[in-house]
Amino acid sequence: MIDCGEGSQIQMARFHVGYRHLDSIFISHMHGDHVLGLPGLMSTFCLLGRTADLNIIGPEGLGDFVDFINKTFCKEKTYKVNFFPVLDDCVSKPVFEDKTTEVYAIPLRHRIQCYGYLFREKANKPHIIREMTDFYGIPYYAYNSIKDGKPWTTEDGEIVPAERLTRPAEPPRAYAYISDTAPSHVVAENVVNVDLLYHEATFGKDNIKRAEETYHTTAAQAAEIATSCHVHRLIIGHFSSRYKDETPLLEEAQAIFPNTVLAEEGKTYTI
Amino acid sequence: MIDCGEGSQIQMARFHVGYRHLDSIFISHMHGDHVLGLPGLMSTFCLLGRTADLNIIGPEGLGDFVDFINKTFCKEKTYKVNFFPVLDDCVSKPVFEDKTTEVYAIPLRHRIQCYGYLFREKANKPHIIREMTDFYGIPYYAYNSIKDGKPWTTEDGEIVPAERLTRPAEPPRAYAYISDTAPSHVVAENVVNVDLLYHEATFGKDNIKRAEETYHTTAAQAAEIATSCHVHRLIIGHFSSRYKDETPLLEEAQAIFPNTVLAEEGKTYTI
Repeated sequence: MIDCGEGSQIQMARFHVGYRHLDSIFISHMHGDHVLGLPGLMSTFCLLGRTADLNIIGPEGLGDFVDFINKTFCKEKTYKVNFFPVLDDCVSKPVFEDKTTEVYAIPLRHRIQCYGYLFREKANKPHIIREMTDFYGIPYYAYNSIKDGKPWTTEDGEIVPAERLTRPAEPPRAYAYISDTAPSHVVAENVVNVDLLYHEATFGKDNIKRAEETYHTTAAQAAEIATSCHVHRLIIGHFSSRYKDETPLLEEAQAIFPNTVLAEEGKTYTI
Repeated sequence: MIDCGEGSQIQMARFHVGYRHLDSIFISHMHGDHVLGLPGLMSTFCLLGRTADLNIIGPEGLGDFVDFINKTFCKEKTYKVNFFPVLDDCVSKPVFEDKTTEVYAIPLRHRIQCYGYLFREKANKPHIIREMTDFYGIPYYAYNSIKDGKPWTTEDGEIVPAERLTRPAEPPRAYAYISDTAPSHVVAENVVNVDLLYHEATFGKDNIKRAEETYHTTAAQAAEIATSCHVHRLIIGHFSSRYKDETPLLEEAQAIFPNTVLAEEGKTYTI
């Protein structure tokens, strides 16, 4: 989960998103609309008797908040919270990783300390070609070493290179989430070629002055970043409540970067 | 406002309840479903530039929570928060009062420190009978002293008793909010004759064992309290999510105390 505004657990129920796979929560910054769903979620996890660890990643101030919630609302602890503060070297070194993914934090330009997150899938291992392994009578236990590139030696002493037994994996995917921020070259340098970029577009270019004052981005600026960084697809979101209809923002972005879509509540975007 | 669960500000918007008259928030206890809407509300007040004081009343631990919210989410303070902790003498001495109302806290029987609240309207002053004051030519500035019971002396020296110039005020109203608690004699002693009693009824009598274990009340028990205390009307609420349809709980209570209604989201109950 990336950011957790008030009512997140209510929205999850509404859209039938289960808690089972929610292992890690990334927080961009300590403004209420990005973090105030955390106490409710953490206290619900206690009530449900969650046992799996929960990883929380975010700016250093978040640690105090998490401690306070834990102390105040999760008195009967059933699970462990691991807090990972974002540090200064966050662009070059993953702030968090698991078996499949590395996550980097990108310092943004907002009124308070704020980070975007870049999710990079680790290189996938190649796929075994079952017809070939069956042909050579290769046992299952050898699959992992073949995937790692080791050749197979048959009983007759024939050496079969791994490339003949496997087909290449899909290229690893990358997703970047960038909110809240004024347009930033640090973002641009770090989201080059990502498959999917979520970038805030709080205002349209008609409100560029207000965007500058409040450290936000316009739809046109978000689209320019997407273009210059050669991202595959752009989602814009975090719209100011002054826009009752976001179509003009979408059109403004699409005029510069056609493959733009609006962030819509409850919608799933596949990478 | 009494209690402030997660999403309270969202519900207020949904039911078109404005912030303008929200001066005081009473919190029963420090469980998430009763207090986790406070950070969002307080931080929204900052964003909106609220200037009126906000009174927050609740158990002593709430003070730390309010301080933490203030420090973390209300950095640009625009209004003052006055915190009134509930003290040991809360049943006999108002924990809070304003021009029209005195509020008492009632210690409840829950898993953690928890209070109900009793709102007693102060005695209203009698109403001036305009026909009578006009008849005697009594000027406006004398109305307040007449309302306070002082007689009026005419130019001819006639003494007109205040009772002849006024009709009695409506009797002061009382409302009690009782949640979360196991059935309690302290409650019963303090809600005698109230016009409206909100009492939790988390379970039906079929789940009385579970009610006892979790320090909650059944619909039947809430109705028994209403009966023995001669309250005028009973609202039951705080239903366990296991009840998809609350009609059986209503019927269970009405069998004992007919003037019972269900607490319904968004509904207004007039006292």
